[in-house]
Amino acid sequence: MYSIFETEITVRPDDIDMNNHVHYSRYLDYLLMARYDQMKKDYKVSMEEFVERGYSWVASDVNIQYKRPILLQDSITVRTQVKNFHGAQVVVSFWIVKGEREKVAAQGEVGYTMVSVRSGRPVRIPDEIIEKYQV
Amino acid sequence: MYSIFETEITVRPDDIDMNNHVHYSRYLDYLLMARYDQMKKDYKVSMEEFVERGYSWVASDVNIQYKRPILLQDSITVRTQVKNFHGAQVVVSFWIVKGEREKVAAQGEVGYTMVSVRSGRPVRIPDEIIEKYQV
Amino acid sequence: MYSIFETEITVRPDDIDMNNHVHYSRYLDYLLMARYDQMKKDYKVSMEEFVERGYSWVASDVNIQYKRPILLQDSITVRTQVKNFHGAQVVVSFWIVKGEREKVAAQGEVGYTMVSVRSGRPVRIPDEIIEKYQV
Amino acid sequence: MYSIFETEITVRPDDIDMNNHVHYSRYLDYLLMARYDQMKKDYKVSMEEFVERGYSWVASDVNIQYKRPILLQDSITVRTQVKNFHGAQVVVSFWIVKGEREKVAAQGEVGYTMVSVRSGRPVRIPDEIIEKYQV
Repeated sequence: MYSIFETEITVRPDDIDMNNHVHYSRYLDYLLMARYDQMKKDYKVSMEEFVERGYSWVASDVNIQYKRPILLQDSITVRTQVKNFHGAQVVVSFWIVKGEREKVAAQGEVGYTMVSVRSGRPVRIPDEIIEKYQV
Repeated sequence: MYSIFETEITVRPDDIDMNNHVHYSRYLDYLLMARYDQMKKDYKVSMEEFVERGYSWVASDVNIQYKRPILLQDSITVRTQVKNFHGAQVVVSFWIVKGEREKVAAQGEVGYTMVSVRSGRPVRIPDEIIEKYQV
Repeated sequence: MYSIFETEITVRPDDIDMNNHVHYSRYLDYLLMARYDQMKKDYKVSMEEFVERGYSWVASDVNIQYKRPILLQDSITVRTQVKNFHGAQVVVSFWIVKGEREKVAAQGEVGYTMVSVRSGRPVRIPDEIIEKYQV
Repeated sequence: MYSIFETEITVRPDDIDMNNHVHYSRYLDYLLMARYDQMKKDYKVSMEEFVERGYSWVASDVNIQYKRPILLQDSITVRTQVKNFHGAQVVVSFWIVKGEREKVAAQGEVGYTMVSVRSGRPVRIPDEIIEKYQV
């Protein structure tokens, strides 16, 4: 079992759409923000370091269920947890929760593929990286 | 079987991220753009009319597979097709294709829930609306 | 002389463009974020309250000089200071600074017009509002 | 006197903010879209070619007056006109007009600095580029 990590997000006025809540595509931006933050803070391999080693992550698929709208004044936390590794792929579960009572605003899974920065092609995730994620 | 409709999208420089291709959340913006365009152009019920009738659509879930990056100079077409109706829900399949050879950049399904503008609560999709979508 | 207030901003990956720095239009989003934050935190009239009183602010003009690029890892502070009030208008100076050494990434002025939410038309800024801004 | 060129923009639902009109920072995205389009279409030096020659443009300052809101259903045209060249700088006037009656939604000036891609530093605009802009 992998740890669950979390990142607090501040909603910006430009995230709000004509329905007066956070635009549905911005949830993916919050998720990406959280993963960047957690790579540095929790896995101790920042995206910058990762790129220096010649690797990068690209999202290969996202599955998201929207449960409750997020308003401008809501405080938001994004939690993520590695589900499994397979070849060049890691699957990550996520929950976007809001307020003190931590109601789920959205949840889902995202698949990331490790690619070589040079070739852009998928690369088997090396053991040293999998190890870093064993926290 | 429902018809497949299509909308052409022009990629904007602000859609491009640090990886030099269209940012992954912007695909959902292209999809929404296409649905708005097709509501007016193909289903003959623009979103504005729809709201006047007291209804709105909210995305309840999205499932997207990213297949190929989209570059600034790529010409993009978003195709969508109603898959089924169920209560307050409609499921729509989509394909985002690029270039003359129409290679799939992304594909997936999105679920929309019809809600009452007044209450914000789900509403069973009325037959007159389902009929409009029988094209 | 009016006080200078400040708000810290966290750069998100989706703010970064193909040039690997914060996209030039996002500076205006950071500025708006800061004003919302400061209305609540410093002037003690949140935008929500303001709207409840029947008023809103719209940007009528922006003048911005870009001095230095902002990178993903930069820590950002947005400072703003009321310059003057005139009729329905308030002019606000701003500085977006980065890092510990607080180098100026951008600076400029923004004019906001107070409008009636009901009519959308400009409204002379009432004394009670000007008073709130006398901090 | 330099020519005025124009580019049509399609407003996307994600451009609309909580006030039900195009978000104020998106005007800068429309402007950038127009300049990219016109570089290719009118000046016959696409941004890609420009970068291949080792150059890039960065916005150094923007001055924009907002005159009228832009709604989702509005048709938009962005017109731009070179005002002058000076060293590494070009100043461009712009007008964002809407609808058949071409009412001005916003207007202003933007300064771009030519930089070397390699060094990131300003470069005197070469005569061959100024010539390309003499249309």
